[in-house]
Formats: sequence, C-alpha cells, structure tokens
Amino acid sequence: MPRITAVNHVAVVVDDMEKSLAFWRDALGIQLQELRDVPAEKSRVAFLPIAGAEVELVMPTTDDSGIAKYLAKRGPGMHHICLEVDHLVSMLAQLKAKNIRLINDEPRTSADGKIYAFIHPESTGGVLVELYQLA
Amino acid sequence: MPRITAVNHVAVVVDDMEKSLAFWRDALGIQLQELRDVPAEKSRVAFLPIAGAEVELVMPTTDDSGIAKYLAKRGPGMHHICLEVDHLVSMLAQLKAKNIRLINDEPRTSADGKIYAFIHPESTGGVLVELYQLA
Repeated sequence: MPRITAVNHVAVVVDDMEKSLAFWRDALGIQLQELRDVPAEKSRVAFLPIAGAEVELVMPTTDDSGIAKYLAKRGPGMHHICLEVDHLVSMLAQLKAKNIRLINDEPRTSADGKIYAFIHPESTGGVLVELYQLA
Repeated sequence: MPRITAVNHVAVVVDDMEKSLAFWRDALGIQLQELRDVPAEKSRVAFLPIAGAEVELVMPTTDDSGIAKYLAKRGPGMHHICLEVDHLVSMLAQLKAKNIRLINDEPRTSADGKIYAFIHPESTGGVLVELYQLA
C-alpha cells in the first residue's frame, strides 16, 4: 500500500513578490532559501523552508498560465498543498480505483527531477493536491 | 528574535465530512486520528496527522460562525495554514512593529491549552495564517 509520508509544501499564489517577501521573510523571519525563475511553469518562485516543509510563493510571469488565470479569477492566496508519497504510481492506481479524478493520470517529471502528479479539486473537496515522490 | 519552527497544520473547510474523509482517509490512506466536535468553534474537526504536521478538516455545525460564512461565500477548500512559533508574544510584537494587521492582538488560549493568534489575510497576501506556541 502506498503511503503519504510528509507535507512537502504549501504553495501560495502572489501578485507582488516583494510585498509577499516583506511578510513571510521580513516580518515572520522565515529564511528565503532561493528565489528562482521557473520558465517551464511561467512563474517566479520563492522557497521558504520551515523544518522539513516549505512555503512556496509563486508569482506568474505571463498571463496565460494556469496559475495566472487562477490569480486573475480568485486573487492571491493559498493555491495547493503538496504531500510526499513513497510510491506515486501505486498511489495514482489506488486513487483511480476509488474514482478520484486526477489532473495527471501518469506521473510527470519536473525540470529538477521530482516525480509528481496533481489530483483534481473536484475529488478532494475544493483543494488542489499535488503528490511528490522524492528520490 | 522569535522563530517560526514548523508547519503545524493546514486547515480545510468542508461541507460534507463523510465525503471529505472518503478522499483524505480512504483514498489517500491518511490515518484519521480523531473526529471531534469543537463547540467553542461551532465546528466538527477531523485530525489527520502526516509526520509532524496535520491536515485538519473543519465542518461548521452552525450557520453563524466565521468559518460557516467563509464556506458560504468561497465554497470548500483550504482555509488557513498554522505555523509554530517559539515565542508568540514576541512574534506578535515584531509583526505589529512591521505594521502587520493581526486578527488577535494578544495570544488566545484554546480549550485544549494551545496558545494561538491569527494574522489578517490583508497583510499576508490573502492567506489566513495562524500562529501556535506549543507548551
């Protein structure tokens, strides 16, 4: 049986990176590990680790990405939660068997080598859930 | 300097507890630690621990609470993120000094003895942030 092993990150969509960093980094005092352009996702991402988890601030850099459309429609705020799983392929099979709607039916691989898939909010009670398999 | 030490939980507002548990517990396989009525918050809460963090599913049990109004307005989905802090009073002072708007200017104590305060989403980029000081 595949197992959820950790909360990896909570992603927050932001419309003003400097203003968001003024809160998360400067006011709360969480260390900014990296601020990186992610062209594949048409966004700029700030990584703020907290113990084993992370807050990720995601700012769209174009108007045509999924996250840009989300921002235009819903405004800034929490976007998704990412959970770590020990075996993603088995987990996706288990979810499909329980009629959970997936955004990615098969695992995808990010530019930095992470294996991931998203679950559709329709099946989760309105929460966009990402699953990561690390290493 | 006060320090953020962990992600304690992500709270999800739900309109149908059984349907939500069918996803988080039955499909993802996360163990349900407890399903508890919290009269002080006019809600029923499911606690699903994941390593050191937790997903909390919160279902309003009346129509007049803050979370019931949130659900009516925005629909089910992520509601807030709770971060642990080593010294809440110092953190609230630091936030006030940086003109961050707080929902609770002073720490509050929950029925089970946790010391907490909420930060207003206006100052965080649309994210409701709770701070916990444990023990």
